[in-house]
Amino acid sequence: MKALLFDGKLQLSSNHARPVPDAGWAAIDVALAGICRTDIEICRGYMDFRGVLGHEFCGRVTECADREWVGKRVVGEINAPCGQCDWCRNGLGRHCPKRCTLGIQGLNGCMAETCVLPVRNLHTIPPHMTDEQAVFIEPLSAAYEILDQVAVQKDTRCVVLGDGKLGILCAWVLSTVAADVTLVGHHESKLERARWSRVQTVLDSDSVAAGADLVVEATGRPEGLARAMTLCKPRGTVVLKSTVATQGNLDLTPIVINELNVIGSRCGLFSHGLAGWETNRFPLEQLITGRYPLDNGMEAFRAAEEPDALKILVEIG
Amino acid sequence: MKALLFDGKLQLSSNHARPVPDAGWAAIDVALAGICRTDIEICRGYMDFRGVLGHEFCGRVTECADREWVGKRVVGEINAPCGQCDWCRNGLGRHCPKRCTLGIQGLNGCMAETCVLPVRNLHTIPPHMTDEQAVFIEPLSAAYEILDQVAVQKDTRCVVLGDGKLGILCAWVLSTVAADVTLVGHHESKLERARWSRVQTVLDSDSVAAGADLVVEATGRPEGLARAMTLCKPRGTVVLKSTVATQGNLDLTPIVINELNVIGSRCGLFSHGLAGWETNRFPLEQLITGRYPLDNGMEAFRAAEEPDALKILVEIG
Repeated sequence: MKALLFDGKLQLSSNHARPVPDAGWAAIDVALAGICRTDIEICRGYMDFRGVLGHEFCGRVTECADREWVGKRVVGEINAPCGQCDWCRNGLGRHCPKRCTLGIQGLNGCMAETCVLPVRNLHTIPPHMTDEQAVFIEPLSAAYEILDQVAVQKDTRCVVLGDGKLGILCAWVLSTVAADVTLVGHHESKLERARWSRVQTVLDSDSVAAGADLVVEATGRPEGLARAMTLCKPRGTVVLKSTVATQGNLDLTPIVINELNVIGSRCGLFSHGLAGWETNRFPLEQLITGRYPLDNGMEAFRAAEEPDALKILVEIG
Repeated sequence: MKALLFDGKLQLSSNHARPVPDAGWAAIDVALAGICRTDIEICRGYMDFRGVLGHEFCGRVTECADREWVGKRVVGEINAPCGQCDWCRNGLGRHCPKRCTLGIQGLNGCMAETCVLPVRNLHTIPPHMTDEQAVFIEPLSAAYEILDQVAVQKDTRCVVLGDGKLGILCAWVLSTVAADVTLVGHHESKLERARWSRVQTVLDSDSVAAGADLVVEATGRPEGLARAMTLCKPRGTVVLKSTVATQGNLDLTPIVINELNVIGSRCGLFSHGLAGWETNRFPLEQLITGRYPLDNGMEAFRAAEEPDALKILVEIG
């Protein structure tokens, strides 16, 4: 089958072995995949991953021991946990120490004609949700993870740093609860696409008043965390949404002096992302800035690295 | 009056101007002062402070418009807030942006014959508490701050990194709630003095099982935070107790991947420290490794920098 691989360098293969599902797993023919910043980081060496890229997708089940699933349109949670340990038993399989993660760790990803995932990871896509919307459920759920970790209220003043895909989704999700949400970016074209509901967008963080209750760092840059600490009130919360933002020479003294609460935030539950979309009908399509067939996957990755790019989709099925 | 100063270098002055209390403030004749790691850091440039050092003390009120206070044995909270702002109104004056801090920021400290503090900062010392015990109320309250910030339970497995004064006090305080508290240090003599109640002490963090619910970083070294992240379970809590521990080239990726909660922790309420001592009668005196008269204050500081030193006291009144 065709697949977009990283094996030290990004490449398109036309004869990659089609995966066969183990017991309790399903094979899915992928319709659409999305390129995430993590995919780009993997191509720079992050996680030492080798194999088929991609973890954002929608598709249709083609093979599964449980015949009920065959033919269903699905999205899938990306962490494949052991199912046996305390983490798994407590609903936190996404932290299972033995987990594989689709296209990130120990499991080939979804930028291929077929991928496999445990059946328990799958969620059917409601008929009124398009493929273009469904492919956003993974990052949308990651944005919802913040609400799972932090008690956000209507009067929680929120600032989101970073006008990338994840930053925008975080701002949208926060604005469903909090009245005052400001998204700070550096790209007019992205901020234009970020406008929704009551989210305020600004080009320059200097115009944002310090003393925010909650600051989400989603810039993917080390200076983002320093800026987040400056904007956050004493005893406030800084949510770290991007791994790459946290490397480098940082003075973290403000965490102690201002008794900040710095919370790392990663994947979320798809049930929250799906329910959130049903209630709020976020205008996900306005974040799509390019679509490429799998055959042009290399070009899709180049497009995803452009400064003005938001979500780049890869059309597969 | 005599005072131990930092004005670019540590020095003893014998004719420093005796401070006069403003309205709402009191003058206190200092009996005993303790040397904190922060004092040593200030002598290396931390906070750009210039003036009389010291923020841990006990003493007796000599001058105060409210005559009720005169003659009372007291300890005093170190942050002098404005009293007007939202922080102050919500009981968090220790985060007031206009605050001065005794011997740390904008206010001469307690390593002098007399110091001044707002009356509202003062707490009377119970008659059955010795001066040697009272001088520990400031760092003991800082250790209690953890219980104010984190929901510690009996089954919360706690690891404290650092066998300095503050690390030991944190381990003691945590052990009043949690059954499993391990203090990790590098000095046999300090760990010997840290033994109390059910606190376990170990010389090598390699022998500590990872997956702790709560890890307190009190080593004062950058590698301490890295070690804390390694020992903490996913979704667990890392408490940063020392400012100096958070500078340098750190890879904070584990915060995001493991969704850690990193909480900075600074001063605590003296009411908590005093109440905690009443209930638990921590063996504070066993942390005293030296006593020097104010005239030998320079020597006291040299002693405080010795690797085996714990609390060095300066005898003043």
